[in-house]
Amino acid sequence: MKVLVTGFGPYGGYSENPSGEAVGLLPEVAAKELPGLELVTAVLPVSFRRAREELLGLLDSERPDAYVGVGLGPGAAHLRIERVAVNLADARTPDEDGEQPVDEPIDPEGPAAYFSTLPVKAIVRRLREEGIPAALSYSAGTFLCNYVMYLGLHHSSRRGYPLRAGFVHVPLSHRQAASLGRDWSGIPPSMSVETVVRGLLVVLRVAVERFEAGDERVTV
Amino acid sequence: MKVLVTGFGPYGGYSENPSGEAVGLLPEVAAKELPGLELVTAVLPVSFRRAREELLGLLDSERPDAYVGVGLGPGAAHLRIERVAVNLADARTPDEDGEQPVDEPIDPEGPAAYFSTLPVKAIVRRLREEGIPAALSYSAGTFLCNYVMYLGLHHSSRRGYPLRAGFVHVPLSHRQAASLGRDWSGIPPSMSVETVVRGLLVVLRVAVERFEAGDERVTV
Amino acid sequence: MKVLVTGFGPYGGYSENPSGEAVGLLPEVAAKELPGLELVTAVLPVSFRRAREELLGLLDSERPDAYVGVGLGPGAAHLRIERVAVNLADARTPDEDGEQPVDEPIDPEGPAAYFSTLPVKAIVRRLREEGIPAALSYSAGTFLCNYVMYLGLHHSSRRGYPLRAGFVHVPLSHRQAASLGRDWSGIPPSMSVETVVRGLLVVLRVAVERFEAGDERVTV
Amino acid sequence: MKVLVTGFGPYGGYSENPSGEAVGLLPEVAAKELPGLELVTAVLPVSFRRAREELLGLLDSERPDAYVGVGLGPGAAHLRIERVAVNLADARTPDEDGEQPVDEPIDPEGPAAYFSTLPVKAIVRRLREEGIPAALSYSAGTFLCNYVMYLGLHHSSRRGYPLRAGFVHVPLSHRQAASLGRDWSGIPPSMSVETVVRGLLVVLRVAVERFEAGDERVTV
Repeated sequence: MKVLVTGFGPYGGYSENPSGEAVGLLPEVAAKELPGLELVTAVLPVSFRRAREELLGLLDSERPDAYVGVGLGPGAAHLRIERVAVNLADARTPDEDGEQPVDEPIDPEGPAAYFSTLPVKAIVRRLREEGIPAALSYSAGTFLCNYVMYLGLHHSSRRGYPLRAGFVHVPLSHRQAASLGRDWSGIPPSMSVETVVRGLLVVLRVAVERFEAGDERVTV
Repeated sequence: MKVLVTGFGPYGGYSENPSGEAVGLLPEVAAKELPGLELVTAVLPVSFRRAREELLGLLDSERPDAYVGVGLGPGAAHLRIERVAVNLADARTPDEDGEQPVDEPIDPEGPAAYFSTLPVKAIVRRLREEGIPAALSYSAGTFLCNYVMYLGLHHSSRRGYPLRAGFVHVPLSHRQAASLGRDWSGIPPSMSVETVVRGLLVVLRVAVERFEAGDERVTV
Repeated sequence: MKVLVTGFGPYGGYSENPSGEAVGLLPEVAAKELPGLELVTAVLPVSFRRAREELLGLLDSERPDAYVGVGLGPGAAHLRIERVAVNLADARTPDEDGEQPVDEPIDPEGPAAYFSTLPVKAIVRRLREEGIPAALSYSAGTFLCNYVMYLGLHHSSRRGYPLRAGFVHVPLSHRQAASLGRDWSGIPPSMSVETVVRGLLVVLRVAVERFEAGDERVTV
Repeated sequence: MKVLVTGFGPYGGYSENPSGEAVGLLPEVAAKELPGLELVTAVLPVSFRRAREELLGLLDSERPDAYVGVGLGPGAAHLRIERVAVNLADARTPDEDGEQPVDEPIDPEGPAAYFSTLPVKAIVRRLREEGIPAALSYSAGTFLCNYVMYLGLHHSSRRGYPLRAGFVHVPLSHRQAASLGRDWSGIPPSMSVETVVRGLLVVLRVAVERFEAGDERVTV
């Protein structure tokens, strides 16, 4: 089974992005833990135009069986397994190229939303069993994270591949949260990048198991 | 320098207590990282009577230079370095012996409060520099955590030892939080026990450095 | 202009439902403040089957120009103007008839989602200008609230009326939150029912203004 | 019975202060609802030096039986009845006169803390019974709110009057929260000033009842 996993690079006030850090660490760990998996990873720029080009290019050149997008969800205290991507780009701040779509559809011809085609509940259940805090989420926002999730699912729907696609939001890294503490008493929630990597491995393991089992009811 | 560090055992609905787990892991790690430190650790029962007996017994038998209490703060998303202990026991639930003091002073002859005599701001600053999320807190509650913090500082004030005392609240462990997820969308904040151990090492390192430097303004 | 506004009745552990309370108070206030508005209100049962029957019955018998669903969002601290309804019923608890759909589509033939066709950003802007805390939300959950929002928009899409539909989540009432305080230190966020009624009036006023202006770009 | 109630004026980024607004509205309402109460109110400046002067001046000139300080607690979603004031001024930002004490005692000769001498649990219980969200709090911070609470209790302890003193933290007003909404999706918790006024009346009513009953166990 071949899986494409993407994280994101730094943006805005964040000089590091734990999604990109974790995805960068994933190949070495996955090679040991999931030897049968063919893993392709990329760190996408926080740019609507360039992220789209890179993602669609990878989907077409690699033709993965599954696509798992990973992105930073500041404020999250656990892994958020996203269940819905909406056909909307509505950015509160410009992306790294200065583009700021407001109330624009991602694809004017596309449906209003796609549900994740990863087995989202099985993933949450397994993550918790393995001691990694995780929960379902029903909104991936309206910035880059929702954008690549929608693009992956839209591509899957129109072209037939990847067969499965979904998205995982990760907390700030401990290092980021520690550096963001503006005063003595406040600090945002966070998770170690090591735990995020362990969590992504679980996501991949569940996806691989379902793929190999040929299970139809994959999304739950 | 000799330091007493205590955690707590299981209580109420919590079959594990990450404070006790972390304190249990501390000696092996501290032996490597802080070889000059004489470390005494204990896991106290969540019982007002027995925790008091064990703590006061250890303070008198070991006569440590410093005492660091550690306890679980459900809801915390980072290490909370407590700055104030109050002369009040007011339990929402019974302790493990069925005792439930309500609106009772810890010591009718004691002062209303003690400030931590650990260098609390230096500890928060160093924790953040080392990428461990931490913040000051001004309330350790009115259950066992505040109780042992008050007892340690009261003992220090009356007997002259330990010279320094304070308390650290730690989040739920990832494993606990994962098991507490009652539905698909909710889960409390948490931290890995490994990160808690690394944090406690930083607390000890700062305390040792200050102790060896003989710095007077130790509490900031 | 004719508008249908629905709230919900009590359910689960909530002996009162502020959405139903507020909708019950709305006609008298709206008669004074929005004299040109023809307002139809109903309090729906927290039952998938009966709520569907009552709502579709009202939409067909009253043929309103707009439909505004209102429901309780425990945990909300402000009015949440919902922007997306998804084709999913996934109940954590049974409804008042004991039905508990899990991972079921609301309509197997329907699209994955609908965007609200109320002017959601104009509504949030106006609410804030009038001193009422409000924000956009991108998930109405997967219980009754999302259900009636999806049904209203689906009906609009297939039958052509109501022209506009959307949903507002409201906080617990002060009275509810006060009664839910389980111990001395904790209590969930809440809002007075009077403030909710004032907020719903603003929602209706913006909807009426847009309707009368014939503005095309109504959803923003 | 004579009670002094103080709120605060605007400070920092807050052009309004709901504590001062509510205290300004209190006399007219209290005249109707608590006719036997002699009420003195003042809005203190957010300045350590001037707040101290005004408060101590009022305590000495008015010699009230009780003192209730009221202040803004940004982030609070309910009335917080403070139980502890600590002998510490530690400001994250300068006050309105540009003074910024850091790690300074309020009175180098004073005790580390005072417990509120208002019947704090009876107040929380009554507030909840009357449908007003309230809870105990064990930290009034280390800025002006804790400062006036400590000063009031310190004065009471040394001079014998007021007999009772305490502090109430109130949420942002709805108007403030609405104006602070920085983007479409986020807004801090808040409460209407009318509800705050109703809550303060309950605080005064409980205090008066206890005073008239001569109840000894007043603080619980």
